[in-house]
Amino acid sequence: MAVYTHVGEAALTALLRRYDLGAVTTFKGIAEGVENSNYFLATEGGRFILTLYEKRVAEADLPFFLALMEHLAQRRIPCPVPVHDRDGQILQQIEGRPAALITFLDGVSLERSTAQHCHGVGAALAALHDAGGDFSLRRPNNLSLAGWRRLADQDGPSADQVEPGLAALIHEEMAALSRHWPTDLPSGVIHADLFPDNVLFLGQRVSGIIDFYFACTDMLAYDLAICLNAWCFDAQHRYDEGLGWAFIQGYESVRPLGPGERQALALLARGAAMRFLLTRLHDWLNPAPGAIVRPKDPRDYAARLRFWRDRGADFFAAA
Amino acid sequence: MAVYTHVGEAALTALLRRYDLGAVTTFKGIAEGVENSNYFLATEGGRFILTLYEKRVAEADLPFFLALMEHLAQRRIPCPVPVHDRDGQILQQIEGRPAALITFLDGVSLERSTAQHCHGVGAALAALHDAGGDFSLRRPNNLSLAGWRRLADQDGPSADQVEPGLAALIHEEMAALSRHWPTDLPSGVIHADLFPDNVLFLGQRVSGIIDFYFACTDMLAYDLAICLNAWCFDAQHRYDEGLGWAFIQGYESVRPLGPGERQALALLARGAAMRFLLTRLHDWLNPAPGAIVRPKDPRDYAARLRFWRDRGADFFAAA
Repeated sequence: MAVYTHVGEAALTALLRRYDLGAVTTFKGIAEGVENSNYFLATEGGRFILTLYEKRVAEADLPFFLALMEHLAQRRIPCPVPVHDRDGQILQQIEGRPAALITFLDGVSLERSTAQHCHGVGAALAALHDAGGDFSLRRPNNLSLAGWRRLADQDGPSADQVEPGLAALIHEEMAALSRHWPTDLPSGVIHADLFPDNVLFLGQRVSGIIDFYFACTDMLAYDLAICLNAWCFDAQHRYDEGLGWAFIQGYESVRPLGPGERQALALLARGAAMRFLLTRLHDWLNPAPGAIVRPKDPRDYAARLRFWRDRGADFFAAA
Repeated sequence: MAVYTHVGEAALTALLRRYDLGAVTTFKGIAEGVENSNYFLATEGGRFILTLYEKRVAEADLPFFLALMEHLAQRRIPCPVPVHDRDGQILQQIEGRPAALITFLDGVSLERSTAQHCHGVGAALAALHDAGGDFSLRRPNNLSLAGWRRLADQDGPSADQVEPGLAALIHEEMAALSRHWPTDLPSGVIHADLFPDNVLFLGQRVSGIIDFYFACTDMLAYDLAICLNAWCFDAQHRYDEGLGWAFIQGYESVRPLGPGERQALALLARGAAMRFLLTRLHDWLNPAPGAIVRPKDPRDYAARLRFWRDRGADFFAAA
């Protein structure tokens, strides 16, 4: 939770001169966001988030992320809309960082979700997949099998520092995933990081999907598999069948899974657990100098990975 | 810039059950505040700041601060208003911390102020002093002469680590201030920390005075002297006569200084420079474990202290 780059008055004034948003009424750094610096900006013209993209986000990817948000918003997905300046530009530069102004969305993220919430998020995810169907840009998922392989090679050997047996788990599971990872499932735009932090609710309704900075082109059902890991385990890292069922039901209420997707879902969930295990392990073993955000515990995802491994590949096949 | 204490969903829900503010539409930690944790809260009923008081604020002082804000707001000083719950209570407990919900004020704080801004802040400060005239609670200023003495004894001997000669400066200036510090000037409620961070502007107008957590009972002209240090020096720590003149003019447009106050103003400014030198020195030499806020540089106030010393006690007397 942090603001990494301070936005001074002069820089803000210069930025806003590019827009017609009226006078500033509020400008405050927001204590959230691991990757970027975020400010809440209110002007006579509306409420916005000013995001400064810090080093972890590749500048070359920003046009993809921003165009995607705009594409989805035009198709009524409740996501932030990038604001164009008078020259039509979205991507700006402020305090030496790439930056963008996006619309502010009402809503609060949940720490504990019910089956009803999961159903709603599942439906919103499927709607996002449908709306992305005619999005023309592509961005390969650099955190799929090849990316995991790199992280596993780099950090796997040190993993027993975190938990005895973790190095072997990663080694064996990488071998299994490499053998079985599917390549023939329906693919398109995925959010790839739809954790509870990134979904806003007003009451029971999903009012916002935010933080598209891992979005990429990959198997749609893999996005669902990420969510099953993120939304459907309890604090003791036990899978909650009721939440999982509700999430999949919600998803299928908008976009029914094909037989191949359903058959592969448990394997995809196993891969998703590996993905977050490896990135958390990396951040845990290589803390950024001066980091003000506590790294997340990789063991939460080791537990999920073991769960999916033990339940086997056809866990969802019969459901 | 930080949120020290995380407010969970359950704690927020329990707190809001005590009020009639409608459903939450936004709840975000704000990346500001050195002493406390602050959250921006919007509900169907309005916009608020939820402040959790961290260890640096003495819980016994909170009733003074909160009653003062309410008193001043009733007299049209643009300060946050503490919100009473259904039982009439202001002070709450959340996540193990004392906390209060106060109204949100529009406006932005300035990094560079013009004479016009200084005039406005001076007038607002004088209006605050007038409005505090019938406030019945008292809180001694624990950061006046006796408090400086404690800090000077504790940290003064190590001050040369920060800047050669600083220990001697503190020693000599404490002796001079102890001999000459006035005791007979008009006294009342002072803000005691009215730095640019704590004043909000909409355009040229002062729209908010915030952060009353150093407020106390002391000489009114000392509050003005704090402001001359905080608002009227440039980035090279040179006194800006134009800003100083405008600030005093603004103050006197509402509350003219008495001859004794004017005569003492330069000495009060010298004491104010000592006060911030000593607290900054203390924070510099004794960084809090796990602190996420960089301590402010004490040398900025050593420069101010030398300025007031060199200009002499009658600097403002003739003006």
